[in-house]
Amino acid sequence: MIKRLAIIGVGLVGGSLALALKKAGKVGEVIGYSHPKSVGEKALSLGIVDRAANSIADAVKDADMIFLAVPMGAMYSVLSEISPYISADTVITDGGSVKTQIVDDARQILAEQFGQFVPGHPIAGTENSGPSAAFAELYQDRRVVLTPVEETNADALEQVKMMWQYAGAEVFYMSALQHDIVLAATSHLPHILAFNLVAMLAARNDCEDVLRDAAGGFKGFSRIASGDAVMWRDICLTNKDAILALLDQYQQSLKQLEHAIKNQDGATLKATFERAKKARDTRFS
Amino acid sequence: MIKRLAIIGVGLVGGSLALALKKAGKVGEVIGYSHPKSVGEKALSLGIVDRAANSIADAVKDADMIFLAVPMGAMYSVLSEISPYISADTVITDGGSVKTQIVDDARQILAEQFGQFVPGHPIAGTENSGPSAAFAELYQDRRVVLTPVEETNADALEQVKMMWQYAGAEVFYMSALQHDIVLAATSHLPHILAFNLVAMLAARNDCEDVLRDAAGGFKGFSRIASGDAVMWRDICLTNKDAILALLDQYQQSLKQLEHAIKNQDGATLKATFERAKKARDTRFS
Repeated sequence: MIKRLAIIGVGLVGGSLALALKKAGKVGEVIGYSHPKSVGEKALSLGIVDRAANSIADAVKDADMIFLAVPMGAMYSVLSEISPYISADTVITDGGSVKTQIVDDARQILAEQFGQFVPGHPIAGTENSGPSAAFAELYQDRRVVLTPVEETNADALEQVKMMWQYAGAEVFYMSALQHDIVLAATSHLPHILAFNLVAMLAARNDCEDVLRDAAGGFKGFSRIASGDAVMWRDICLTNKDAILALLDQYQQSLKQLEHAIKNQDGATLKATFERAKKARDTRFS
Repeated sequence: MIKRLAIIGVGLVGGSLALALKKAGKVGEVIGYSHPKSVGEKALSLGIVDRAANSIADAVKDADMIFLAVPMGAMYSVLSEISPYISADTVITDGGSVKTQIVDDARQILAEQFGQFVPGHPIAGTENSGPSAAFAELYQDRRVVLTPVEETNADALEQVKMMWQYAGAEVFYMSALQHDIVLAATSHLPHILAFNLVAMLAARNDCEDVLRDAAGGFKGFSRIASGDAVMWRDICLTNKDAILALLDQYQQSLKQLEHAIKNQDGATLKATFERAKKARDTRFS
């Protein structure tokens, strides 16, 4: 049971956690803050939070648990703003898509209270955003990665783990660096590829007729290219190294496929497609 | 009403047409041939065809309508094999994903009977293949592109149009070249990008834990990378020019995104992602 939960950023991620904990009866009071303030008031009107705070300070003072669910680019300043209001018992955690950066930031900003910070990332989401996209079942049977470090307080870690279990999720552990590489490969890179394709097609005016039926897999691409632009900009900037390494590898293998098409090299094409199909059908589905 | 329909290739595309026409009561007898013959026998056992032919010749002689639903790489030889058995009234059409190549091939092979050939492409499909993947509703409310040329017989065109309408589809017209460019952009390129990503991830062993939940849009990518390898090899080879042109354009704009990430150029990233999101939300959804 969490007595007082403060959520900074009551959109899809933060709002859904509040709704899940309320539904499970595992939270006393939820106080939310979003920028701009109207978003917090929207969350209040939807019953996601019990109170819309006037400031970050107002939201987090006296909170037992603080959940940060803002775009990665806002994490540094939010950590700085909450830092003066953290008592010895406050637990802080986050839902950010990149973990090495926030671990570094939190270590610097929270200083001797850094052990109370538990870095986390729920592997769940939709292409929608904002409080009205939130729903209590978002985390049901989904996984949440926690990336504790040496300094992480064992009791804080346990409390965050319990919170996610109350929300219906299963918790597992990785290092922050491993998390960032795996997410770059499985989420960040696919989003960049999709944004790039849809942005390219947006400049054409001959595709709508065919896309009305969203044939040939375009639907999958198109859906993820509808993610929030600020959130994805921040992910690209905060997970830069892992993304650039994978993007480079991706472009090299795309060049090989291009070369095979140019040279009518059907054997290479077929072997690559079979390797992908096999991995998808046996390991990734 | 089609009295006798011959289907060469009774997989997802051919088999679903047979089932749709049977369900609509718009076909007398369906004769199927697939290579290997066991596939045709499977289709017979599933009630997709009324007879599994022993050869292409056996399937098409005396047919009123012939539907070719084999991978693009087999179209040339199948056209050659059916050519001697076409009477003055036989209508031939196909369901291939690339149209310029088959128009050229059919013009050469069918010679004075080329007018009886109506190039077509149903914009529908799933990632599954083979007779057991076929279902009567595949074409319901989907679109079928026909790409007639100057020589195309008006009566043949009308019969093919009617056939697709019986199957529940809506028919529209494009030139073969326009079709191939648009499909390269909206289907062929996305598949190549997805195959390339999944093949790359297949070489890693650190992704399964995260992919179990298929977070962050990987599901959409992964699904289309499960397409039939031979079919996609053939599409790459037969629509080479259009695909290479778009692949080049794609790689150039991906380089620009890579450059923006390298240089922490958040403005370019945000503008590109917003452009994509807007196009998806307003035009492509």
